[in-house]
Amino acid sequence: MAIVVNLEEERGKKGPSLDALTALVSDDLAKVNTTIVDRMHSPVELIPQLAGHIIAAGGKRLRPMLTLASAKLCNHRGPRHIKLAACVEFIHTATLLHDDVVDESSLRRGLASANAVWGNKASVLVGDFLFSRAFELMVEDGSIQVLAILSRASSVIAEGEVLQLITANDTSTSEDSYLEVIRAKTAALFAAACRIGAVVANRPKAEEAALESYGLNLGIAFQLIDDMLDYSAKQEKLGKAIGDDFREGKITLPVILAFRRGDDEERTFWRRNLEELDQAEDGADLRHAIGLMEKHQSLLDTINRARHYGAIARDALGIFPDGPAKSALTDIIDFCIDRAF
Amino acid sequence: MAIVVNLEEERGKKGPSLDALTALVSDDLAKVNTTIVDRMHSPVELIPQLAGHIIAAGGKRLRPMLTLASAKLCNHRGPRHIKLAACVEFIHTATLLHDDVVDESSLRRGLASANAVWGNKASVLVGDFLFSRAFELMVEDGSIQVLAILSRASSVIAEGEVLQLITANDTSTSEDSYLEVIRAKTAALFAAACRIGAVVANRPKAEEAALESYGLNLGIAFQLIDDMLDYSAKQEKLGKAIGDDFREGKITLPVILAFRRGDDEERTFWRRNLEELDQAEDGADLRHAIGLMEKHQSLLDTINRARHYGAIARDALGIFPDGPAKSALTDIIDFCIDRAF
Repeated sequence: MAIVVNLEEERGKKGPSLDALTALVSDDLAKVNTTIVDRMHSPVELIPQLAGHIIAAGGKRLRPMLTLASAKLCNHRGPRHIKLAACVEFIHTATLLHDDVVDESSLRRGLASANAVWGNKASVLVGDFLFSRAFELMVEDGSIQVLAILSRASSVIAEGEVLQLITANDTSTSEDSYLEVIRAKTAALFAAACRIGAVVANRPKAEEAALESYGLNLGIAFQLIDDMLDYSAKQEKLGKAIGDDFREGKITLPVILAFRRGDDEERTFWRRNLEELDQAEDGADLRHAIGLMEKHQSLLDTINRARHYGAIARDALGIFPDGPAKSALTDIIDFCIDRAF
Repeated sequence: MAIVVNLEEERGKKGPSLDALTALVSDDLAKVNTTIVDRMHSPVELIPQLAGHIIAAGGKRLRPMLTLASAKLCNHRGPRHIKLAACVEFIHTATLLHDDVVDESSLRRGLASANAVWGNKASVLVGDFLFSRAFELMVEDGSIQVLAILSRASSVIAEGEVLQLITANDTSTSEDSYLEVIRAKTAALFAAACRIGAVVANRPKAEEAALESYGLNLGIAFQLIDDMLDYSAKQEKLGKAIGDDFREGKITLPVILAFRRGDDEERTFWRRNLEELDQAEDGADLRHAIGLMEKHQSLLDTINRARHYGAIARDALGIFPDGPAKSALTDIIDFCIDRAF
């Protein structure tokens, strides 16, 4: 696809990676994984089976790693961040299970999604279980402040998901409404995951706020790129089908920009495809949509918007001293954005 | 239906009611209702709309009333039980929303269910919102002990729902497996709702345990009668369609008893109807099923089993002094069982 080649040329050869982060938190992450496997256990065997399928499916563990790296940045000593990082992953997994039901997805990270294998019912209920289990883990940790942060994040996520449901198939959705959705459904958990690192380390409010701001803006950048990738990356690379959002009529930034920059004929095209979901079965409409996005630079500008939020995230870390933790957290920003290429 | 008449004769004329309970907690319940309306608010309007539909649909508010009456029994002074009773109702409502999605129900308390009006997606997400909001309310209350009780109850409920999903359509399900399901999916929240009344009042562990035991056994009795009513009460009275469980192939105690007491021909009938879901569309199979239940007294014995758990619940209250709260709580037991008639 032309866009990929152009962008490849634009930046250098060797892309940023999560290597520094992985090295920084690998011992802790192994403990988080053990905690996850341990605590998703239930005498009802279907629960660890289904939960294990999605948790083991090879997600990046980005959110729990954010908690671990943030705790490290704050010089946290002690074991509390391990359990709380597992909580964050449980909440994330619960929302994935419910998302796949809501989106009627059949693929997740390149594998059959849990709802495709075990049905929607089991996915809803195991999601509820993981969500409850997350709160049980927080209770064991015993911090009302952490409970406040994650219960608030959880209702914000749910609000964001409902808002997304309402704006689906509405091509008049503004960039601001879209931002409100991704801020809630994605960035709120990134923000909470990072803030918890400062909370367990008993750092001053300013550092809590800095890590929250880092997480929030990183989360926005992450979701922008995710939405851009749905129109550009290869399915194998991403582990999910290209054009999913298009087929569901999701209104993401690449669409919003192309719609606003297009002429009447193009808007009629977008309405037919995304509002009426009247789409050519041979993929011709998807190819045409990508063509319009290239014409209006809406994929490139989605990346540019992501860079803006990435820059805010980077500056938010400014108050922390340089070192391996700060540098790993900075690398995540570049990784989240540059995985677009 | 013959069973109704027989049972009507068996007991007296004027049945027990929730009147004493309602009188006892009416001021508090009004505050709980205000809290519920207040706290299901969200800038995303669909959330209070959908949540309001199910919450306002005229449920009995049995679970929050249990918290209120238990707090009264424990001489609790102060406002904490109000917010926590609202939490209990939020958790209950969240599970109802997810249940209706899982059961594909189109009716709830005689009205169209939320999933029938707004779709499964919105029901899943608003359920998640109410669940998160419940935890936010608990965090405001600030008691780790309450958080522990309700987060544990929530995962037990989810486990019970998954277990029910697994045993659905399996006529070999034992009475014990069935009991395990209803203990988890229904009784655990009754138990938690009651126990919280002792916790807010800082009562000794023995009283906490007594109220928990009362709630657990009351919850089992309640669900037994609920499952019995699906084969006997009039739809209008119950606000839901008779034979729902039959059509879905749910294995409840009336079925388990009739199946075990039946002959080979009858078991073939049960398997065809509940495992293969091969059922006559004119309701003839449902009528035949009810006939078999009458033949084997399986509805009557389901009530008898409920009486057994009701008796345990009654004795659990023995350590508390007599008075209006204790008497109201005792009335609930009779009401839950005698609504069978």
